[in-house]
Amino acid sequence: MKISDALRQKADYIWQRILNHPFVIELYQGTLPIEKFKFYVLQDYNYLVGLTRTLTIIASKSNFDLMRKVLKLAQEEANTELANYERLLEELGLTIEDAIKEEPSPTNYAYMNFMNLTAFLGTPYEGLATIMPCFWSYMEIARHHEKLLKSNENSLYVNWAEVYLSKEYIELVEDLKELLNKASEAEFHRLESVFKRASKYEYMFWDMTYRMERWPI
Amino acid sequence: MKISDALRQKADYIWQRILNHPFVIELYQGTLPIEKFKFYVLQDYNYLVGLTRTLTIIASKSNFDLMRKVLKLAQEEANTELANYERLLEELGLTIEDAIKEEPSPTNYAYMNFMNLTAFLGTPYEGLATIMPCFWSYMEIARHHEKLLKSNENSLYVNWAEVYLSKEYIELVEDLKELLNKASEAEFHRLESVFKRASKYEYMFWDMTYRMERWPI
Amino acid sequence: MKISDALRQKADYIWQRILNHPFVIELYQGTLPIEKFKFYVLQDYNYLVGLTRTLTIIASKSNFDLMRKVLKLAQEEANTELANYERLLEELGLTIEDAIKEEPSPTNYAYMNFMNLTAFLGTPYEGLATIMPCFWSYMEIARHHEKLLKSNENSLYVNWAEVYLSKEYIELVEDLKELLNKASEAEFHRLESVFKRASKYEYMFWDMTYRMERWPI
Amino acid sequence: MKISDALRQKADYIWQRILNHPFVIELYQGTLPIEKFKFYVLQDYNYLVGLTRTLTIIASKSNFDLMRKVLKLAQEEANTELANYERLLEELGLTIEDAIKEEPSPTNYAYMNFMNLTAFLGTPYEGLATIMPCFWSYMEIARHHEKLLKSNENSLYVNWAEVYLSKEYIELVEDLKELLNKASEAEFHRLESVFKRASKYEYMFWDMTYRMERWPI
Repeated sequence: MKISDALRQKADYIWQRILNHPFVIELYQGTLPIEKFKFYVLQDYNYLVGLTRTLTIIASKSNFDLMRKVLKLAQEEANTELANYERLLEELGLTIEDAIKEEPSPTNYAYMNFMNLTAFLGTPYEGLATIMPCFWSYMEIARHHEKLLKSNENSLYVNWAEVYLSKEYIELVEDLKELLNKASEAEFHRLESVFKRASKYEYMFWDMTYRMERWPI
Repeated sequence: MKISDALRQKADYIWQRILNHPFVIELYQGTLPIEKFKFYVLQDYNYLVGLTRTLTIIASKSNFDLMRKVLKLAQEEANTELANYERLLEELGLTIEDAIKEEPSPTNYAYMNFMNLTAFLGTPYEGLATIMPCFWSYMEIARHHEKLLKSNENSLYVNWAEVYLSKEYIELVEDLKELLNKASEAEFHRLESVFKRASKYEYMFWDMTYRMERWPI
Repeated sequence: MKISDALRQKADYIWQRILNHPFVIELYQGTLPIEKFKFYVLQDYNYLVGLTRTLTIIASKSNFDLMRKVLKLAQEEANTELANYERLLEELGLTIEDAIKEEPSPTNYAYMNFMNLTAFLGTPYEGLATIMPCFWSYMEIARHHEKLLKSNENSLYVNWAEVYLSKEYIELVEDLKELLNKASEAEFHRLESVFKRASKYEYMFWDMTYRMERWPI
Repeated sequence: MKISDALRQKADYIWQRILNHPFVIELYQGTLPIEKFKFYVLQDYNYLVGLTRTLTIIASKSNFDLMRKVLKLAQEEANTELANYERLLEELGLTIEDAIKEEPSPTNYAYMNFMNLTAFLGTPYEGLATIMPCFWSYMEIARHHEKLLKSNENSLYVNWAEVYLSKEYIELVEDLKELLNKASEAEFHRLESVFKRASKYEYMFWDMTYRMERWPI
């Protein structure tokens, strides 16, 4: 079995919880309160900045071939992806300044620090394993709930979700899997630990955004 | 005003919450349920391992004079301090293996990752500012609640607390302040942000241990 | 005075030696033996890979605004610039595989390790100061020796040199200076030390390639 | 075969050159000009500072068990070993300030930057492989040339050399080997590359000190 598939299998019990989280279901049904979606978008903008940092750390420790590929991804995140966010923010009556001013919630901050520290301390593959669950689970969520979109009357949510069903997005996820599959089998135990931790944070991210989590102090 | 005093002042609203947290008060009164204290000790052991890592990262980025001082601290943490923990664990009917097996709670893990990542990304002084609130607030807590110890009938808690009133511990905190006070004034804004974040985590640590926090998945 | 200009001034005695190194003069005159140029191109390819790594390390420690700009540069280096090298290698009867197989000489390896380690240990601005002398001095060399190109009968050398007189290249250098000029004045002493060290390595790079330096063992 | 022995074997052609370098032979014979020895001691002091930094970087990336052992080594280097140097400097009519002021030569600086960068980019075992050749070859040199010491009339050199024949030093080297031997076999190819590079730098260090190398600019 490919490393990526084996990791996905080990984390399945977590991914089932992700697929069925109320935030996800209400978003695909179109019933999610807009305030929760706004909160999500502001938090996720900050998460993408953190994820771009993770990519630069991974690149800095990679051989030139991997560095080039990861740099391309980082460049896309820092430009295309975040530019999409600027459009989405506008549609929500928000600005990029609102997103920059938004303080990452405790769970969001913990997730980003975990990704970045793991990338600093470990191999490039451990770094890649921290960012995989986010990219990959978005695709799987979209496929799993695709039918719900047909009766979803909130065009904002539908437009948002359809990105993750696009050919481009699927290719991106497949490219990432391919990079990760070049890891050595000797690393598997460590990659599993990292991939599961990131999957748990992915679940906790949906949950904190549903609760609109703030710092207790 | 010295940098350390200015930082302490900026974070005072957080420190007041720390001094008055029920875990702290019940511990100094002797009324804290032993299960909560056991949970605290197991979590704190893991925190000290994380803090020792922070010290090694700070050392790795310091000039030789500062490196030597930070190394001495790290060596003390990794040996003396953690040896004390082994004794304490034994008195609680726990072993070092229990402590190693204990999974750091979400808040504990987030706190450690914040410290280590900040130390990697920033200057040695930013690293020192992440570890100061822990060392320093333990001394301040002990002074603030010293009187409570007189009527505290739990000798385990009293012995634990008296360490933080000892001459050696006070010297350690003063040494750390002195190191931090050598930072450049130009860094103050950044140090304030780090010191406050670490103070918030210190508050959240007491709170998570009072709640005996576990991973939601 | 702007930080970049002040740094340039402090390093002037080194830059005079760069401008007048026989490798540089013979290259602009067209009299440089082709074997030395081939050696240079193979070594420089490896240097550019190392410099791209430096950019990723700088990006990983920068705020998002600087990260984005540095990522754009890194992406350009990893693609456009190195693609130019592939064309140049072909014109010299060499392949990209030859370049990858070429072992960086001791001076080249020392220069790259200095850049990358400085970027890891210091601020993003210290990182930028390690890469500035290379970019900037190539522009200054081209301007200083522009007249020599008129009587240079080696079209390969002329084509190579004219890149550094192009509007695009000048803009790139000006952009880099602007990034560096946002450093805090409090950092100047440290930036000076780094900028001079990088300038010395720049001089030593021309000298090692003129000598076609190899490992003594 | 143990990893350390396999690495030693792969680097044997380099170690033969180390054992027979004129600096080493003249030192053990007692005929080395004192000026060269003074130069060596000043450079080596700076090297040990760099090596202590390498140990802190290795520690920062290790699990707690390895971190503790590496920290102990770093602490010994930063204190005992460098204290020995202070005594030696005094006997040579030099001070610790002379050593601190001494600029590391190009080869020394390149060696240290290689060690520190490798430790940042790679696994803890790659870090350990950068420092092994120094510790280990000093022991092997001492054993190989032990007989020469009997007719060596320079007591300063004899005292210096006898440290590397002591029980404590041999234990230190054996401890280091044991740490390295815990690396995974999957890492061997990478460790070999690092160990050979460090061995080459070890040879080049003796050679640069024999030439009393200075920066060309």
